[in-house]
Parts: sequence; C-alpha cells; structure tokens
Amino acid sequence: MSDRPRFSFSISATDGAGRTGVIAMKRGDIRTPAFMPVGTAATVKAMKPQDVRASGADIILGNTYHLMLRPGAERVARLGGLHAFMGWERPILTDSGGYQVMSLSDLRKMSEEGVSFKSHLDGSAHMLTPERSMEIQRLLGSDIVMAFDECTPFPATRDEAALSMERSMRWARRSRDGFDAGQDHASVSALFGIQQGSMHEDLRRISADRLTDIGFDGYAVGGLAVGEGQDEMFRVLDFAVGMLPADRPRYLMGVGKPDDIVGAVERGIDMFDCVLPTRSGRTGQAFTRDGPINIKNAKHAEDPEPLDPDCHCPVCGQWSRAYLHHLIRSGEILGAMLMTEHNLNFYQALMADLRAAIAEGRLRAFADDFRARYLRG
Amino acid sequence: MSDRPRFSFSISATDGAGRTGVIAMKRGDIRTPAFMPVGTAATVKAMKPQDVRASGADIILGNTYHLMLRPGAERVARLGGLHAFMGWERPILTDSGGYQVMSLSDLRKMSEEGVSFKSHLDGSAHMLTPERSMEIQRLLGSDIVMAFDECTPFPATRDEAALSMERSMRWARRSRDGFDAGQDHASVSALFGIQQGSMHEDLRRISADRLTDIGFDGYAVGGLAVGEGQDEMFRVLDFAVGMLPADRPRYLMGVGKPDDIVGAVERGIDMFDCVLPTRSGRTGQAFTRDGPINIKNAKHAEDPEPLDPDCHCPVCGQWSRAYLHHLIRSGEILGAMLMTEHNLNFYQALMADLRAAIAEGRLRAFADDFRARYLRG
Repeated sequence: MSDRPRFSFSISATDGAGRTGVIAMKRGDIRTPAFMPVGTAATVKAMKPQDVRASGADIILGNTYHLMLRPGAERVARLGGLHAFMGWERPILTDSGGYQVMSLSDLRKMSEEGVSFKSHLDGSAHMLTPERSMEIQRLLGSDIVMAFDECTPFPATRDEAALSMERSMRWARRSRDGFDAGQDHASVSALFGIQQGSMHEDLRRISADRLTDIGFDGYAVGGLAVGEGQDEMFRVLDFAVGMLPADRPRYLMGVGKPDDIVGAVERGIDMFDCVLPTRSGRTGQAFTRDGPINIKNAKHAEDPEPLDPDCHCPVCGQWSRAYLHHLIRSGEILGAMLMTEHNLNFYQALMADLRAAIAEGRLRAFADDFRARYLRG
Repeated sequence: MSDRPRFSFSISATDGAGRTGVIAMKRGDIRTPAFMPVGTAATVKAMKPQDVRASGADIILGNTYHLMLRPGAERVARLGGLHAFMGWERPILTDSGGYQVMSLSDLRKMSEEGVSFKSHLDGSAHMLTPERSMEIQRLLGSDIVMAFDECTPFPATRDEAALSMERSMRWARRSRDGFDAGQDHASVSALFGIQQGSMHEDLRRISADRLTDIGFDGYAVGGLAVGEGQDEMFRVLDFAVGMLPADRPRYLMGVGKPDDIVGAVERGIDMFDCVLPTRSGRTGQAFTRDGPINIKNAKHAEDPEPLDPDCHCPVCGQWSRAYLHHLIRSGEILGAMLMTEHNLNFYQALMADLRAAIAEGRLRAFADDFRARYLRG
C-alpha cells in the first residue's frame, strides 16, 4: 500500500468542460468520471462486493450516520475497519453524516457546535460535530473523508442560504483541522470540502473561495439534487463547477438519474453517487438504453428478452424479463439481487462510455445520442 | 442430451444399510446420498443458480403448487420450461403439489377425483388431480416427477391411515398412467412413487407392494417428518426402507436436520430435500459442525471468526460472524444471501462426507463422530 500515492488526480483528456482521468490512492485507482454505488450499512444492498467490483466500480460510498448507529464506528475499528469488515478492499468514500441527521427533522437540534439527534433505530441520543464526524470516518478507515456541513434546505431565502453556507464554511475549517489531527489516517486518506450557496452564484463563489483557501484534496458541489429540478441544477452547475479548482476532482453529491449524470459530466463533474440504481432495482425499475422500464408491468410477463438487449452484464446474459417479472412480483430476494446487479452494470457502462467519449473528443455527440434514445424510451 | 441415459442408478458401495452411487439422467449425474435444495418459486431463495451448483448440488426441487399458481405451468412451458426460465440446466425434481394443497386446510376439498382448492395468492379456484399434476410437471419440464398422493396427516388412526394410503395407491396408478401418456416427456424423465402408511409396518408393506407392482424409477418414503419426532421417524425407517426395491433410489421427503439426514442415510435413504438450510439461513440460523448457532445472538457482535472455522465455503473464507450478525440484525438482503450460501454449502459438504464414509466403509464411525460433535454444540 505504501508504494502508491496518498492522493493524485491526473486528467488524461478534456472535451469542452468534461474531463477524464484517474485518481490514484493507496487502495487503488478511481477512473473518472466515476459512479460510486452506495453501501449505506456496510453493504451495497443485495450485492456481494466482488459483484460490485465486477460491474466496474472502483470506489463505493459508506454512510457515516448509519454506521455510527449500527454497528458503531468504534466496533468497526475493533474489527479492522470498514474494508475488512465488509470485504471491499478498494477505496471507500464516506459522507459526513450531516445530510442524514439534517433530514431527521423532528429528532435533531442544530447549534454552532454541531447537531444533536436521536437515533431512528432506538431513540438513543447522539451528537455529530465536525470533529466527531472526522473521528468516525477515521475509525471506519475511510479513504475519502467528506467535510461535515449543512446541506442547505430547498427552497431557502437568500439570507437563509448565506447563513447556512457561512456555517458550513466554518465547519469546513474545523473538519480540516479535525482530519489533520488524525495524522496516521490523514497520511493515507483524502479530505474533500463541500461547496454550498444554494442556487445563488455569489454565494457559490464565496463558498468556493473559502474552501480553496482552506485547501482540500477534492471539492464537492453540495446542496443540489434537493428538489430543484434538472434545469435548475444544470443552471447552477454552469457557474458553480468552474469556481472549483480545475486540477482537483469535483464531486456532485447524490446525483442521479442517467441523464443527470451525462449533463453534469458535460459541465465538468468527475464523481457521482446515488441510491437510484440499487433502490429502484429492488422495487422493479430497470435502467435500459431506451429509458427505465417497470419490470412489474404485465407486458413483461412473457417477455423472453433480456432487460436491455444492448447490455453485456451477467443478468442480461442469463435471464429474461419474464423471469425478473416473476421474481419481483413474487417478492423473491433473487429479484432484488439481479435487478440491482443489472442497474449497477448499466450505470458503470454509462460511465465507461462517457470516459471513452471524452478521451476521443466526442462527448457532445455521445451525450446527444444518449439523450435522444434514453429520453424517448 | 440424447447420449445420456433417461434414468440409471448404480450403487458403487454399501456400508451396513447405507449406499452410495450415482443416478445418471439426461441433464446430469446425481451423486447419492443427495441433498436437493428447495427452489419453491423457480428460485432457490437468495441464491443464483451458479452458486447453488458451486455448493455441490446436483439437483434441485421445484414446487408444483407454487409454480402452477405463479407464473403458471403453461406460461413456464411457453418460456421454454423451468430449466431455461430460471437458469438451472441440471436435473430438477418437482413435487406433485399434493402436500401443499393438503395443508390449505380451510381452502381445499378432497374427493376421489383429486383436490379442489383456492389459491392463497388471489383466491382463484383450481383443481389438482393425479392427471393434472402429471401434466403440470410435464409442462414445467421436470426431470424427476413425483406421483400425486395424499400425505397422511399425523396423528392418524389406523383406519384413517389405511384409507388414506389406499387412495394414494389408486392415485399412484393414475399418476403412472398420466405420466406415461406424455410420451415425449416420459422418454427423457423419471417418475417416483411415494410409500404411505403412516407409522404402521403392515400398511407400509402393503403400500410398498402396490407401488412395486405398478413400477417406478424410484421410491419415496412419504408421510414422515410430519411431527412424529426423530425417534419415531427412525423407528419407521427401520422397517419401511427395506420394503422398497434395493436397486432403486429411495427418497425421504422433506428431511431434514443434519442429524436426521445422517440417521436416514444409515438406514438406506439416498435422496433428501428440506427448506431448513435456506429458510433458517434467512432468519439467522447457521449450521456448523458444532451444531446450529443463532447469528443474531449478542455474543457474535464482535466475533471475528467465520460461521464455521472448519467450513471451506466462500462465505466462511471471506466474512466474520460479526459482519453476518450486523447484516441479519439490520435486515440486509446480503445477510440472507450469505447465510443461505453457507448453509447450503454445509449441507452439501455433509453429503460429500457421507458419500466418502460409505465408500470407505466407515459410515458408522463417521456418523457417531458427527453426532458427538454436532449434538453437543
């Protein structure tokens, strides 16, 4: 592990605002643009880690909020860290827990110090601060640690957005200090800051400047995909992304639908995470190059075709829509397994296509062709 | 497929009443004693078929009752049969549906013709007869078809047991005729008869004689594992098994716990099926050579050991009891997947050990050692 760099981002090609490259870390390379499957509770739901890897994932995401409550960060540390615990040896990015505790609207209380809250599992009292979030992510053994911030609610007035962003920037400074204090961990992992500012260009600029002054390994665009819609999200990305250092990875948190990802890559985003391929797979939505399909629909009951005839994943090579229709309708676990596996393969194939398109200078044509087919479906 | 025999049973070694050998069929060999994982609704729950195979299974069981209701036998036939539908190319044994419809106590009505019943899924009306059961199993493409019979309830008076057995023997004749009428299917598949007679030696003798007169490829011992307890089951096996033709496979339906299987193999049984390894795996019971453990128990929360330190399965090679404790406690699908995979591997390893012990003339010693450790655990 020691021969590899702690964190090194190299861009091999650009095409318009889009970029492709590699983030090299101790536990492996991350090809960008990258999609990170969400492994909330130390498992990408319904998937063995080797099948997550086989789908093309270089990195997965773990949720600090869920893991701190169950099984607990100290317990994970005693068991050798999150990688050993769950059997995933490649990089893991952990969120800060901030987004999830903020969404516990009735169970949490915010202050300058941090957020006190009650567990949704057993009602026990907890506190998350920038310092504790850094400590938890260190105990988990995270490779990419996210600063603890407040995801500004949407909609917010300009004053609310400004106050929220300013607090997040103070917490970003405390996150940086807390991360650096864990020297052994800081020497092998990376810390990302998170831009806030809601939909306001001037606030996004202030936030980007504050973060850049503190200095991070990578920069996330936070506070989007919160209900503003794709048009508004793209409008914000059009000015927000360019404010972040061009030589650092840019991560759009919680995004998104395939066409969201394509549009964000065109605007210079390098990293994504989203529960959509896993969560929607479990309930019967399959992604295809002709748009999403609901496998529970009666028209698939005797459909002998694979989920996506153009897909090369193990599921499409072996099983029919009719079989998956039967499994999902019957509530069979194998249905959740196979739908998830297909969807993750679909997302990773899309990322591979985007990387190839950028490398070959045809991102715009690829994106237009993708949208023409996907959105017509 | 045509170069292989329709059905050929060769015994390579015996040890006391125990036997080991191979059933050769069109779709593959079945090493005996064999354990058949249960794939109720066209899936061994929470398992990909390739992982079922990797556990050592040569054959799986499908349930006529469930499949006739959903997705429907005619639909499965239109989709190419059960093997293609679910992606399992090796032999499949299907039950007759009789056991399951009989257990719908409030929803079914019996007559000499058969059993009329209402679906537990949607209340729709259906009828199962020996002829319809044979037709459904033919539509599914079953390799080993089970005669349609009545599993005599327990306890039953001697008169009840006699009347029930006599009806099952009349239905066995009709099953034989119905099976033979489907000539194309009968030329590539096998039909098993089922001995009844409850716990009575004279009734078991009459049933065995009737079945042998009709003539079947194999013979099942039915009406056991219905609540009589292991001692009583073994007492019946002590006289019932020897009544069945020695040159044909003997199948003990619905059995059982690991120590049930060991004792039944010692009494000359060649085939088993049971939901125990799959069902109990999903709820947190793991089988080990030191007896079953409940992985949800708090003592496993930080246990770094594999489920069974002597197990060579993929789960025990990669994950700890602590991780499985976390997954099952959290209701994660991966918990059900890994627990099931381990349990099926445990069962298949036991069958392999039994086959080796018989081949090497040390069945009694193996069985005693197994019990001493397993039942102490």
